[in-house]
Amino acid sequence: MLDAIPTEPRRLESYVAGRWQAGTDEGQIVADAATGDPVARVDATGIDMGEMLRHGREVGGPALREMTTHQRAMMMKRIGLALMERKEELYAISTATGATRSDGWIDIEGGIGTMLSYASKGRRELPNAHVIPDGTPEILSKDGSFIGQHVLMPLEGVAIHINAFNFPVWGMLEKLAPTWLAGMPAIVKPASQTSYLTEACVRLILETGELPEGALQLICGRTGDLLDRVTCQDVVTFTGSAATARKLRNTPAVIENAVRFTAEADSLNACILGSDATPDSPEFELFVKEVHREMTAKAGQKCTAIRRAILPRALVEPAVEALRARIAKTTIGHPGKKETRMGALASTDQVEEVRKAVEAIGAEARVVIEPGAVPEKGAFVAPCVLVCDDPLNAKAPHEIEAFGPVCTLMPYDSLDEAIDIANRGAGSLVASVFTDDTEVAKTLGRGIAKLHGRVLFGNRLSAKTSTGHGSPLPQMVHGGPGRAGGGEELGGMRAVKHFMQRTALQGTPDQLTAVIGQWMPGASRRETEVHPFRKSLAELEIGDTIVTEARKVTLEDIEHFAEFTGDTFYAHMDEDAAKRNPFFEGRVAHGYLIVSFAAGLFVQPDEGPVLANYGVDSLRFMTPVNAGDSLRVQLTAKQINPRETDDYGEVRWDCTVLRDDAEVVAQYDVLTLVAKEQRDL
Amino acid sequence: MLDAIPTEPRRLESYVAGRWQAGTDEGQIVADAATGDPVARVDATGIDMGEMLRHGREVGGPALREMTTHQRAMMMKRIGLALMERKEELYAISTATGATRSDGWIDIEGGIGTMLSYASKGRRELPNAHVIPDGTPEILSKDGSFIGQHVLMPLEGVAIHINAFNFPVWGMLEKLAPTWLAGMPAIVKPASQTSYLTEACVRLILETGELPEGALQLICGRTGDLLDRVTCQDVVTFTGSAATARKLRNTPAVIENAVRFTAEADSLNACILGSDATPDSPEFELFVKEVHREMTAKAGQKCTAIRRAILPRALVEPAVEALRARIAKTTIGHPGKKETRMGALASTDQVEEVRKAVEAIGAEARVVIEPGAVPEKGAFVAPCVLVCDDPLNAKAPHEIEAFGPVCTLMPYDSLDEAIDIANRGAGSLVASVFTDDTEVAKTLGRGIAKLHGRVLFGNRLSAKTSTGHGSPLPQMVHGGPGRAGGGEELGGMRAVKHFMQRTALQGTPDQLTAVIGQWMPGASRRETEVHPFRKSLAELEIGDTIVTEARKVTLEDIEHFAEFTGDTFYAHMDEDAAKRNPFFEGRVAHGYLIVSFAAGLFVQPDEGPVLANYGVDSLRFMTPVNAGDSLRVQLTAKQINPRETDDYGEVRWDCTVLRDDAEVVAQYDVLTLVAKEQRDL
Repeated sequence: MLDAIPTEPRRLESYVAGRWQAGTDEGQIVADAATGDPVARVDATGIDMGEMLRHGREVGGPALREMTTHQRAMMMKRIGLALMERKEELYAISTATGATRSDGWIDIEGGIGTMLSYASKGRRELPNAHVIPDGTPEILSKDGSFIGQHVLMPLEGVAIHINAFNFPVWGMLEKLAPTWLAGMPAIVKPASQTSYLTEACVRLILETGELPEGALQLICGRTGDLLDRVTCQDVVTFTGSAATARKLRNTPAVIENAVRFTAEADSLNACILGSDATPDSPEFELFVKEVHREMTAKAGQKCTAIRRAILPRALVEPAVEALRARIAKTTIGHPGKKETRMGALASTDQVEEVRKAVEAIGAEARVVIEPGAVPEKGAFVAPCVLVCDDPLNAKAPHEIEAFGPVCTLMPYDSLDEAIDIANRGAGSLVASVFTDDTEVAKTLGRGIAKLHGRVLFGNRLSAKTSTGHGSPLPQMVHGGPGRAGGGEELGGMRAVKHFMQRTALQGTPDQLTAVIGQWMPGASRRETEVHPFRKSLAELEIGDTIVTEARKVTLEDIEHFAEFTGDTFYAHMDEDAAKRNPFFEGRVAHGYLIVSFAAGLFVQPDEGPVLANYGVDSLRFMTPVNAGDSLRVQLTAKQINPRETDDYGEVRWDCTVLRDDAEVVAQYDVLTLVAKEQRDL
Repeated sequence: MLDAIPTEPRRLESYVAGRWQAGTDEGQIVADAATGDPVARVDATGIDMGEMLRHGREVGGPALREMTTHQRAMMMKRIGLALMERKEELYAISTATGATRSDGWIDIEGGIGTMLSYASKGRRELPNAHVIPDGTPEILSKDGSFIGQHVLMPLEGVAIHINAFNFPVWGMLEKLAPTWLAGMPAIVKPASQTSYLTEACVRLILETGELPEGALQLICGRTGDLLDRVTCQDVVTFTGSAATARKLRNTPAVIENAVRFTAEADSLNACILGSDATPDSPEFELFVKEVHREMTAKAGQKCTAIRRAILPRALVEPAVEALRARIAKTTIGHPGKKETRMGALASTDQVEEVRKAVEAIGAEARVVIEPGAVPEKGAFVAPCVLVCDDPLNAKAPHEIEAFGPVCTLMPYDSLDEAIDIANRGAGSLVASVFTDDTEVAKTLGRGIAKLHGRVLFGNRLSAKTSTGHGSPLPQMVHGGPGRAGGGEELGGMRAVKHFMQRTALQGTPDQLTAVIGQWMPGASRRETEVHPFRKSLAELEIGDTIVTEARKVTLEDIEHFAEFTGDTFYAHMDEDAAKRNPFFEGRVAHGYLIVSFAAGLFVQPDEGPVLANYGVDSLRFMTPVNAGDSLRVQLTAKQINPRETDDYGEVRWDCTVLRDDAEVVAQYDVLTLVAKEQRDL
């Protein structure tokens, strides 16, 4: 594997407007973290940032917006699968960043997995369309002739992603996934230190041939005047130090044009052991294991790593001893070696940074586990544990981050104190809580949520299934308030919205139907000669409607339904009891009877393109139905959602059941699967 | 009415930590816009901003967070109704700001209406709780023992609202409504020019006695070092000029602590007449009427007012003539007089600003309707219309805003050009489109959405029901990208989230159930001796469960159900046809049969606390049911939502139907109304 790293520093290139381009200066030499040997030259001098932005805006953006959400998701799936096939090429390079195989797994497979997760979640949760409705329609006039609906459409600029050195692959892919799904092109600027791995990954992505030109550009080196050129249609995201975040946030063009700026900065994340734990409890062991894992994974270079371990005062000494034992078994060495459990920091600069930070924290805490010996060459640092005995009167341990295998233990005497200590981080990405007492979980969780982007609870039950303190997941928001930068990433479809404009549309139902491409309440219902259940997706149109015959509900129907189903609830069976109910004037039909009769009215029974009714959404019974009332149904095609990978798709129908052609009795969405073409029967 | 305005300038006071306090300096004198007479002295010198923040954080915040969402909503309703009763006191003062009765209606009743709207929408759309779930649970482990759920909880700081001079009441109330509903206290800083009206409104609010102390404080005058003291738990919102927005956004403490900052700046909003319009079409008249209305309402001093009217080239002259006729009939004068159709600007400074802006725009456009005569005293300006004949080669008309009764007409020759012209605003709060052609609506809507926070479509159908170009509604987002400030306000519950921290929770289902107060999938189901339908809200607990008997589904059941309901869909009736369907292996039971039988299994029929089943949410049929399969139901109390105003509340039940005690056949939420106490039967 080590052979894959060239001994002569390779000159990295940027990917600019469809071509690979090297900088014109000598640039910065970055070294192998484990050996100190030079790996790459990084320089972007002479690259035309204006051209990159133009290329993204005029070539990449239009190509992505031409595709539907699901087409973009399928593209991402193909790219993810192709990367997975070539992952070993990335692992081979990853060692030079100081990463062990398991560190590399987080970065490489974690990143590809995030791309794949968005590819499948996007198809499940977004309609296959160009315009995404956001929330439900608002009826803005009494007669329904004027309504509102929010929609999301892609911003027509470029997303600029400025990433940190610790996750050269994941850091790029976790941002590209929601960006592309939204329909925006991106310019990626990795931290120079590990940019050779990002560059390799970009080459693999481009080689798949799946990505439209302009959807991805890369800057290896400085960004020059890139940020001076952004407009409100661009987005800037940053992961890294709080100081740099502040600087970027202050860029005149960013402020002037109200450019969306998301920062994710390292924070002083806490792990709390509940007051219910004892040295023998599984939660104590889980706590110690998690603290140790977060110290040693990526050699502690994770923005989510535990910097402050908060625990009952009586458990400090047992925890120190348990950590000492685990640290003693943690082999430090070349990340490419099998026996290595902890690799190197990304650079010798980082080693110095960590040393300084430990010194500063040490002014208000005592070192209880001194760093042991490490290999002489390379950027190695051994784990170090401190104890801050009076954390509520300390400052540095809550404010200064040692971005390496360093953790400070902080004792508490009450849960309120534990909350106070955790919140002294002044805004963190994540905190974890180990407890087997749900009341302790509730108290701590509600006490710290306001200052944390994520809170993870662990106990014996989830010991094997928990995804762990330090792992951001595609489904859950990653980011935190205050010191953590105030940004949000990931969180499923939430992140996709960061790259889209939300617009409030108001107008007549027919106008909004046309703009959105989805039938809106009150829009024209088009009764077609052919029953809409006889139409394939290719034939069906938004607004196609069947208005059914009427059916009278009799007392016999109600009694029969009750007897047949067993649902003899008093409101259906007992006239006096029903009258005593505040909502009814007498015996009423079952809600399930109404929807069953409705189906009987609207279904076209013959074998045809409609394959199944797979569900119902937002069913509301609006008016009671009594014996003698007559029901009629209006069923209208509301949303047509062809699948990219199947010969069928989803059709969402607006179903309105009327009583005596006047009041709405029930309102719901019927969900069906319908073949794309007429089936060959 | 005029008598209500004192002739000696009154010294306004700020409301600080529970007391009214005047500034110690002479301060600024503000004048009656219509008469030029002094109205008030405004000064906040000597007010301790640190004390205000502390008071909000330590007194107001805890009191509001003690209340549930619905309790806060009810408080807002009572305050809104009390203000409505005393609205005439506000109208009497409003005239001094230059506002006519109908201008005052937008400000005063529009503001109170927004408060009332949030009060009712909040109770409809939020659970009555302290912790608000955001989105649906994420199952994070295969066995379901580790899950995720996002929640929203109030930020524990203070919301600082810095408002514009044009809507002294609405500007305050539209921000207070979501702030209070979220559970945050506020400090309001109105623009000095019209702060006497805001001060009067704050006095009325406090006199209701409904608001917990510390939930509202007021600064009449300068904010001093207030913004230097904010943390990530505070929120700063600003409405006003883009220049001031930039300055505030740049405050070191705001940048340093990643404080949430929302700006809503004036923008160059457009109104577009569709290419389908003719001088005789209703849409032409609606367009002209809207442009005129937006010029004259509040004398054009609305951040949403139409500054650029974009129309087919051939319609420019007819539009000018139609506007001329309307403007000729627009009586300008003292806003307190009945015959007045347009009042004054807020101050003589504004008159000068408007004059300068018209001059600058005039460099690239020609004045076609010159401002007519106006009363000599007071801040009056008459309407002015310009035409910019070559808008795609002009700059000033897209960039310079005359914040008064001024509009520039811009001709287009194609829809693409119309889109281009509208988007030259570089980010606007709103655009309106008048067209009776849904294809034109689609083209224009999709073309301009990316740069607009709101797009309103009008035509003959909505002529009477449309809420109009210039009116932000509580339901719809108000704010826009770029020049409009990049912020979002209102938009229903979206705005409430601006004052809450979103936290991703991960843990076991029981842990998250405890923290959130809502039953999470996979959490313990507690089978109780008493059927949960026999329990009142007072007795019922989250997790209470009934596991029913099993019921076998027979072919006779399926055939009988088909015959009874009329739903003879081939998948239920025809073995061969069902087999040809990609999802079934033979005839399957109706989905509606499954849910009907499920109800028969879980319902407890006797008269009791359960009042009604009012709906079903998110019903999914997961596995087909064939004849011979046996069904059993698990029904678990998931969310208990007592109403503040009724003797019942909503209970949401998790309903899981199992086939042969193994696979999940159907999964849904059953929604019931349940009495708070056992009913007296």
